[in-house]
Amino acid sequence: MEILRQRILQDGRALPGGIIKVDSFLNHQLDPNLMMEVAKEFARRLEGRNINKIITIEASGIAPAILLGYVMQLPVVFIKKKTPKTMSDFYVTEVHSFTKDRWYTVCIAEDYLSAEDNVVFVDDFLAYGNAARGAIDLCTMSGANLEAMCFIIEKGFQGGGDQLRREGYDLISLAIIDADADGQIKFRD
Amino acid sequence: MEILRQRILQDGRALPGGIIKVDSFLNHQLDPNLMMEVAKEFARRLEGRNINKIITIEASGIAPAILLGYVMQLPVVFIKKKTPKTMSDFYVTEVHSFTKDRWYTVCIAEDYLSAEDNVVFVDDFLAYGNAARGAIDLCTMSGANLEAMCFIIEKGFQGGGDQLRREGYDLISLAIIDADADGQIKFRD
Repeated sequence: MEILRQRILQDGRALPGGIIKVDSFLNHQLDPNLMMEVAKEFARRLEGRNINKIITIEASGIAPAILLGYVMQLPVVFIKKKTPKTMSDFYVTEVHSFTKDRWYTVCIAEDYLSAEDNVVFVDDFLAYGNAARGAIDLCTMSGANLEAMCFIIEKGFQGGGDQLRREGYDLISLAIIDADADGQIKFRD
Repeated sequence: MEILRQRILQDGRALPGGIIKVDSFLNHQLDPNLMMEVAKEFARRLEGRNINKIITIEASGIAPAILLGYVMQLPVVFIKKKTPKTMSDFYVTEVHSFTKDRWYTVCIAEDYLSAEDNVVFVDDFLAYGNAARGAIDLCTMSGANLEAMCFIIEKGFQGGGDQLRREGYDLISLAIIDADADGQIKFRD
């Protein structure tokens, strides 16, 4: 997706430790027009599939997911990182965050994910694939079919995406960054 | 906002402990069309004000905020509940969560909130007003002007909104629930 690549080159920064800093437009401050273009591109690539629901994970996945839900006219469910008092029956799994360097519990209410569902998972970043694995776990527990997984930026150099592809998952990544060794961002063709 | 009230009556539930359960359309599963109508209504009520930025707090505020950003063509910044490794200079304050019964740290990067900004704060719920107080703190620290605060549902019976109004803050609440004593939801006129 060319406008996304241009924006990453213009406003993104590769920091030591494999961090791609895009908080001026993607995961702290958000550019709603870029986000809408991202959502439309996801929708275009998902055309013709019989998806009935979008799932994402709080917090940075919510913005692209709600816009994709609006474009595709589908409900959106966001996986929560805590078990709220207001929810009783849910599927729960554990996810490791590389950026925050800790494990956390994620959950989704049984009411909103079931064997009737054919879902797409949306997130801002794919790095080692830990959040994606959490979504896979929750789909497996509920019996939902995970039709595809959509990411705005894939950090190809961290390998999570390629491993998921080898396992047969259908991944849609709008920009795959393959190297940041010298602090320069290089996209996979 | 009539369609919101109808939806709350149809799909919401008043639970013991002052909890209004709306997770089928508002804060776990999201109805993107209702969210878009909410955003348009916020935009209508904010018309003519010189707002240059929308701020919200993760996670449930992000969906209405990004849609409002899209409708008003303004950038959105979401206040984070952790201090990420990828951010260095930020304003930090403490917020108490009634629902989760704990204190947590919230922050916003100095790059994205400053004395140049005239902002509106958006969130899904206003209850005791704790998240709103966090946003007020961060605006005060940065020198930003907090022009108005927008909420989808205000739990009037918990008093946070009325206290903020007494202090002079400009609140836009699309549905104010004033009583749930008998498990019935009653709206303020």
